[in-house]
Amino acid sequence: MRKVIFILSFLLLGVLQVRAQQEIVNAIFSEALSSDVAHENLRLLCETTEGRIAGSSASVRAVELTHRIMKEMGLDSVYLQEIMVPKWVRGEREIARMNSLLLGDMNLNVSALGLSVGTGQDGLSARVIEVQGIDELEEMGREQVEGKIVFFNRPFDQTHYHTFRGYGSAVDQRYSGPHAAAKLGAVAAVVRSVTSAAHDFPHTGVTFFSEEGPNVPAVAVSTLGADLLSQWLKEDPSLSLFLRTTCEQFPDTISWNVVGEIRGSKYPNEIITVGGHLDAWDNSPGAHDDGAGCMQSIEVLRLFRELSIQPKRTIRAVMFMDEEIAQRGGQAYAEYARLKEESHYFAIESDRGAYTPRGFSIDATPENLAVIQSLQPFFAPYGMHEFFAGGSGVDIEPLKNHFNMTLAGLVTDSQRYFDVHHSGNDTFDQVNRREMQLGSAAMAAIIYLIDALDLLK
Amino acid sequence: MRKVIFILSFLLLGVLQVRAQQEIVNAIFSEALSSDVAHENLRLLCETTEGRIAGSSASVRAVELTHRIMKEMGLDSVYLQEIMVPKWVRGEREIARMNSLLLGDMNLNVSALGLSVGTGQDGLSARVIEVQGIDELEEMGREQVEGKIVFFNRPFDQTHYHTFRGYGSAVDQRYSGPHAAAKLGAVAAVVRSVTSAAHDFPHTGVTFFSEEGPNVPAVAVSTLGADLLSQWLKEDPSLSLFLRTTCEQFPDTISWNVVGEIRGSKYPNEIITVGGHLDAWDNSPGAHDDGAGCMQSIEVLRLFRELSIQPKRTIRAVMFMDEEIAQRGGQAYAEYARLKEESHYFAIESDRGAYTPRGFSIDATPENLAVIQSLQPFFAPYGMHEFFAGGSGVDIEPLKNHFNMTLAGLVTDSQRYFDVHHSGNDTFDQVNRREMQLGSAAMAAIIYLIDALDLLK
Repeated sequence: MRKVIFILSFLLLGVLQVRAQQEIVNAIFSEALSSDVAHENLRLLCETTEGRIAGSSASVRAVELTHRIMKEMGLDSVYLQEIMVPKWVRGEREIARMNSLLLGDMNLNVSALGLSVGTGQDGLSARVIEVQGIDELEEMGREQVEGKIVFFNRPFDQTHYHTFRGYGSAVDQRYSGPHAAAKLGAVAAVVRSVTSAAHDFPHTGVTFFSEEGPNVPAVAVSTLGADLLSQWLKEDPSLSLFLRTTCEQFPDTISWNVVGEIRGSKYPNEIITVGGHLDAWDNSPGAHDDGAGCMQSIEVLRLFRELSIQPKRTIRAVMFMDEEIAQRGGQAYAEYARLKEESHYFAIESDRGAYTPRGFSIDATPENLAVIQSLQPFFAPYGMHEFFAGGSGVDIEPLKNHFNMTLAGLVTDSQRYFDVHHSGNDTFDQVNRREMQLGSAAMAAIIYLIDALDLLK
Repeated sequence: MRKVIFILSFLLLGVLQVRAQQEIVNAIFSEALSSDVAHENLRLLCETTEGRIAGSSASVRAVELTHRIMKEMGLDSVYLQEIMVPKWVRGEREIARMNSLLLGDMNLNVSALGLSVGTGQDGLSARVIEVQGIDELEEMGREQVEGKIVFFNRPFDQTHYHTFRGYGSAVDQRYSGPHAAAKLGAVAAVVRSVTSAAHDFPHTGVTFFSEEGPNVPAVAVSTLGADLLSQWLKEDPSLSLFLRTTCEQFPDTISWNVVGEIRGSKYPNEIITVGGHLDAWDNSPGAHDDGAGCMQSIEVLRLFRELSIQPKRTIRAVMFMDEEIAQRGGQAYAEYARLKEESHYFAIESDRGAYTPRGFSIDATPENLAVIQSLQPFFAPYGMHEFFAGGSGVDIEPLKNHFNMTLAGLVTDSQRYFDVHHSGNDTFDQVNRREMQLGSAAMAAIIYLIDALDLLK
């Protein structure tokens, strides 16, 4: 009988504990949904640091702004981590103009790809061959490609529910296409924007730059522009395209990750990282990618403070610099951690757009994966059902090189992400306050649960 | 042994059947995600029939447009159902101006509430008392209220994940507040817009009109305007508010539901209805509410056609008229069905905004509820996890008065809905093509499964 009572008390304690935790999770979500602090911080970031690609003056302003925001919160510690980043500069606004004896002339909206070389001041003009991918290009061989501009026009595959799959279906053209074309003697490359949207914004992104060469000027063209170019090519295969880009690479330059901490009460030397990347493409305010991820990470600290949740472990919000080009911020963060012999317990990144969260992508041992999946019922009231094994985020991934630890990525509704990704329309007004704050709350809640319950092995 | 083989074959058949059905569900989603037909139809509706409240000329254009769209699809049958609808007319643009000896004058953005009476050409001016709800008003009593303008300022509760709960937390002020104020001698009512957004758009909606009276002029004020009015009242409680609205009610007028059908191959007399409402508030393009629901319903028929899925039962897309004011379209649809002695098998409505679908709200017997819940695995790949007992949609609900049948509502991500609901910013550009099409596909898929498998009792 005593044993039964003991077991019943134990079960009751368990139930009460789960209820108490659910109440804290609920409080986190309620507070997040009621607050506009993070959203207003994002507005400020977008308005004052548009185009904050690594190495730019806007990126320095972004470092200063987020440093100041965290300082003013009175966190236990706020500091910069010095790193060296690549410095690629777009230069003047790109020109792309179709010239056809049959059809006339028309400009297209293009954006130079990150790391691409420029055409020089005079630009270049050449005939265009359209291909649906690198395979088709390589089948053509040097004879057909040499001296031409290669136009990669395979569209984003819309049929997938998960738009990251649609992105994956076409992005090889942007990353590997220009170099593949260069190797066959092409003089430039034009890539259909890797986007789910039919509109006139070009979507940039990094392309492979070969130290050994050859490299050719490469631009993304808007999807409407790509359709037009393809149509004109059907009507006049002999049209030529004039391209002018003045991008340049400069020597690596100094930059910083920005870090803010709440010190842990019990295990201050065990670190939990929550982060986003502070840089954004130079043609964009970078609201979803990834200003929102940064402000959500700072918001996680604010939520702990506001609700007087004292973490056992040290929680760090990290604004990683240079995700878009060379991921130096993430690499440096892991390297600093190794040098300082830190102990890292858990890290989570938000870099899939500040849309309604759907779950977490978890990079962990099977045991820790199962533990995190067992938390799903806490999140079901907030529409989060997808707790699966998968990648986390490119900025926190380097931690795995040095630490045997659990990583996660915030998974959000992906339908709209590639409408704005790497493009001028990734603007503040596209970020819904409530959707963004659900993401902040989701990260705060999973950190709270993992830390409070000492869940990870 | 023979029995084992028999059972195994049976199981195998079951597995193969489920696989075949999942393939059709997948095909429905892929086709929907690839198509822009419904989205472009919505664009046309929003651009050419803005402000299509029942009884308006815009609503007649909307009837003509959707009739023509379905005619051009070559459906088996396309027709109108005649109904009588209320005719409430907003009149001239409303004026609301704060007048303070201390603070000066300032205009506020307001929108007359549906069915509200006008102030007359001269407008009216009175002192304002702010209350946080009807209870507080009634505690004040006639002495404090008489001759005043009552300002209901309890905000939308942001803390709930489900925004319909936030809406429900405040909408009584809009529906019942003005009449409650009138009964205590108020001369007008101003209601804080029932919205999740902090912006300067007023959000209208219907208010209770008493045949016996008293009724007073009533307007919604934008949330920013409400905050300002509240602030000014703190600084100068004696400020007066000038209001001018010229709304009028006219005798009921003729209108129509628009219906398109694909005839069933096996049970043509059994009807499956999929619908949305064609009317929208007169201050709005009505993109999410509910132009999208109409175009999604037509899209369900297009998806069946495009994929050569022949339904056993007759599927009807219904554009219901007059959801916003008196729900006459839904009532008439049910009444026509009763008079024609139709047999109704299933009905589903989309009227919660064309956001990413999350599941279905199901109004059914416990047995049929369980059957529909058992379909959830077909939808899990599309992020739909919420299959719960609940209301369907106000346009299809009257069917329950005459038919013992199953109803459902498409449940969508609700975070952004009340940012645009009943407001001038419910514009086409707020509707993401992919999110909308996931909703079309979800409705087509559940209709396909229910029909093909004869699931409902």
